[in-house]
Amino acid sequence: MSASNDPSTSTFEQIGVIYTPFTETAGTPIQAAVAGGAEGRVEVFEPFAEGLKDLDGFDRIWLIYRFDRSRTTRLLVTPFRDNVRRGVFSTRAPCRPNPIGISAVRLVGVDDNVLHVRDVDMLDGTPVLDIKPYVPEFDHFAVNRIGWLDQSDKRTVADSRFR
Amino acid sequence: MSASNDPSTSTFEQIGVIYTPFTETAGTPIQAAVAGGAEGRVEVFEPFAEGLKDLDGFDRIWLIYRFDRSRTTRLLVTPFRDNVRRGVFSTRAPCRPNPIGISAVRLVGVDDNVLHVRDVDMLDGTPVLDIKPYVPEFDHFAVNRIGWLDQSDKRTVADSRFR
Repeated sequence: MSASNDPSTSTFEQIGVIYTPFTETAGTPIQAAVAGGAEGRVEVFEPFAEGLKDLDGFDRIWLIYRFDRSRTTRLLVTPFRDNVRRGVFSTRAPCRPNPIGISAVRLVGVDDNVLHVRDVDMLDGTPVLDIKPYVPEFDHFAVNRIGWLDQSDKRTVADSRFR
Repeated sequence: MSASNDPSTSTFEQIGVIYTPFTETAGTPIQAAVAGGAEGRVEVFEPFAEGLKDLDGFDRIWLIYRFDRSRTTRLLVTPFRDNVRRGVFSTRAPCRPNPIGISAVRLVGVDDNVLHVRDVDMLDGTPVLDIKPYVPEFDHFAVNRIGWLDQSDKRTVADSRFR
């Protein structure tokens, strides 16, 4: 049975490319929230461009993308902000069973099929799978407990540990 | 070339199942934030269970999943909170080019490979692809503009329009 017919797998199609200033992992921001406004753009492939209608009304958007430079899967990882091995699902590390990333980036402009964004934290050339509006009513939750991150350092840029 | 070898496609493996009280779209909460505490559980398949270590320290987690009951793709949709057609990427509707959903649900307990959660807003049996910790430092952003949602109604449950 081919992967695409197997109900336990999902095949997704790249809808565009994210261009950023970051060509290698070391030095790349670990999260959009600490990316210091780094500029990038998303080029959405022409067949999907109609779906961008109305997006320009939003200050911030979720990019759902593939960590395409992540070649290994580890269930226990030492995350950027710690020196202890943690379960990968308690981290945002790229070496996940399914290397899917989510980043809420600032949308500063839309030119046809090109989105101009800031606060990018992914590598240059990253394939984008989906785009959604960031909506505080849906995305803001008050939480008290943030696990191991509560005691962690405040590192903001990656090194090459997940290459 | 098979889909899994094509660099423009990504094949992801189901890592578990989300069980919820919702067996049909009509009446299902449209977002975790308006799910009123609906209870569910996530059963993570045994080969991935080690990756759940340390997750129990977090109050809330992101579930990344496949809208497996969404059979159509539309680039323009009339979202639950509107009566005008909008670009699908400016909505959280399921009928997306890549039917990927993200929901931040409350984590109330972990028993081995089972996560007990609340605020579920997906259909019973939904395949889960990834789990990440919800971290205010990474996930809270102040935004002013929320596009068409600013004028929209405050509907909280779905109907069957995306079946």
